[in-house]
Amino acid sequence: MPHDHSATTPAVRVAPGKPLRLADIDPDNTKPFKDKKHAKERLKELRKQLSDLQENLYAEHRQSLLLVFQAIDTGGKDGAIRKLLTGLNPAGVQVAAFKAPSKAELDHDFLWRVHQQTPGKGHIGVFNRSHYEDVLVTRVHNLIGPEVWVPRYEDINNFEQLLTRDGTRIIKFFLHISKKEQAERLQARLDDPAKRWKFEPDDLKERKLWDSYQEAFQDALAACSTPDAPWYVIPANHKWARDLAIAEIVVAALAEMNPQPPAADFDVAAQVVE
Amino acid sequence: MPHDHSATTPAVRVAPGKPLRLADIDPDNTKPFKDKKHAKERLKELRKQLSDLQENLYAEHRQSLLLVFQAIDTGGKDGAIRKLLTGLNPAGVQVAAFKAPSKAELDHDFLWRVHQQTPGKGHIGVFNRSHYEDVLVTRVHNLIGPEVWVPRYEDINNFEQLLTRDGTRIIKFFLHISKKEQAERLQARLDDPAKRWKFEPDDLKERKLWDSYQEAFQDALAACSTPDAPWYVIPANHKWARDLAIAEIVVAALAEMNPQPPAADFDVAAQVVE
Repeated sequence: MPHDHSATTPAVRVAPGKPLRLADIDPDNTKPFKDKKHAKERLKELRKQLSDLQENLYAEHRQSLLLVFQAIDTGGKDGAIRKLLTGLNPAGVQVAAFKAPSKAELDHDFLWRVHQQTPGKGHIGVFNRSHYEDVLVTRVHNLIGPEVWVPRYEDINNFEQLLTRDGTRIIKFFLHISKKEQAERLQARLDDPAKRWKFEPDDLKERKLWDSYQEAFQDALAACSTPDAPWYVIPANHKWARDLAIAEIVVAALAEMNPQPPAADFDVAAQVVE
Repeated sequence: MPHDHSATTPAVRVAPGKPLRLADIDPDNTKPFKDKKHAKERLKELRKQLSDLQENLYAEHRQSLLLVFQAIDTGGKDGAIRKLLTGLNPAGVQVAAFKAPSKAELDHDFLWRVHQQTPGKGHIGVFNRSHYEDVLVTRVHNLIGPEVWVPRYEDINNFEQLLTRDGTRIIKFFLHISKKEQAERLQARLDDPAKRWKFEPDDLKERKLWDSYQEAFQDALAACSTPDAPWYVIPANHKWARDLAIAEIVVAALAEMNPQPPAADFDVAAQVVE
């Protein structure tokens, strides 16, 4: 079972089934470090461990790791994923980004497209957005009512149980920023021509739905944080603290999975390389 | 909820969770007809209804139908599927045959490859073998123990619940033949050069496991026959009676689904074809 990381990171592991109040979690929390400089050394250590663990996971070819990233707009999903995967062997990593569903995807159940992208044995799969969109954005925009999104919580938990039974460790990250931080990030995207491509006028309409999104996230995280597939709320106003917390949690999970390269199935001594 | 068809067919709907004894079901039962000749007229009627219902299902583009076929070797899956689909519009039908899993499929959970083949809205999907193989052949050959196949019953029921919630009606057919009938069919394949390609020496090894297969089928059918996704045992020593029973059940299900072509979203009277 994945650890509680509240002693060494600002991350909050969501308790299964208990009401969650995001407003009670400080998005500025950078525990245990006060600034980026002090965190740097620790991040470097974690990167090395992560790289070694991934190599063993790949060689072992028996378990998988699935990392789910969700956030409000500008929450930092792309940046956090890029930072985490830097230096890993791309052969063993697959990132799936889920945008608005296609026509063929809409013709199937909401887990159909997601299931196809689950990581195979030995792989780390990263979901940039995920099946959780189908209890978030669709709910906030009133495309579905509770008679649809409540049963979906059960479908999601069943689906994640299936993956867990098959040897996939699942960790889910909600990148938690403040409404003020979002305003600054949106303004920066508007002001900086180099970042302007990330901005869409619709982002401002979505911002108006801030409270509805927070509520939808709270419900989904509480309903779908399970002992085997927990949700972590990652305080994410400070990118360096966000990245450090994610790295701590991923490294601890992989260490617990303890992947081992398989023993040689031939007589090593008898092999002569000429 | 799908009907009980015991009044008009020899099919036995499996009661959820209750022990099932296949030995109590007569594979020679051809109720309500005594011979092929008398059944012919009824089958013709059903074909016409099936074709009309499929057209509406396709036009409506809102619901799906998934038909699962399982049987012991020579049970008649291929023949039954061919007969059922004759005359239907191929655009709205997809048949998926599940053979021994590939390396990529083995790298994922047992429902991964199956989920990809579920029918989209408006379609009839037919599974020739299915996810049930993973609680049957693997169990009989001791590739997995009960600690794996018992939880899989739950995974299967959860998966089928997901599809049902999304508008897919699921009907599962077990084609039930006697051990003597199998002997005759295997011998016919050996004797007839035109049928010999269907025979493999391994078939005789599998035949030795007859009792284990019957037991595995009994358990799986009882565990996974649900009100919304029932299993039917189809007496299948007589092919014509088998095909008729299947057609009766499929037509009744589609009639209950009552697919309706969508109304025109334009002013019909205003359209002038010149």
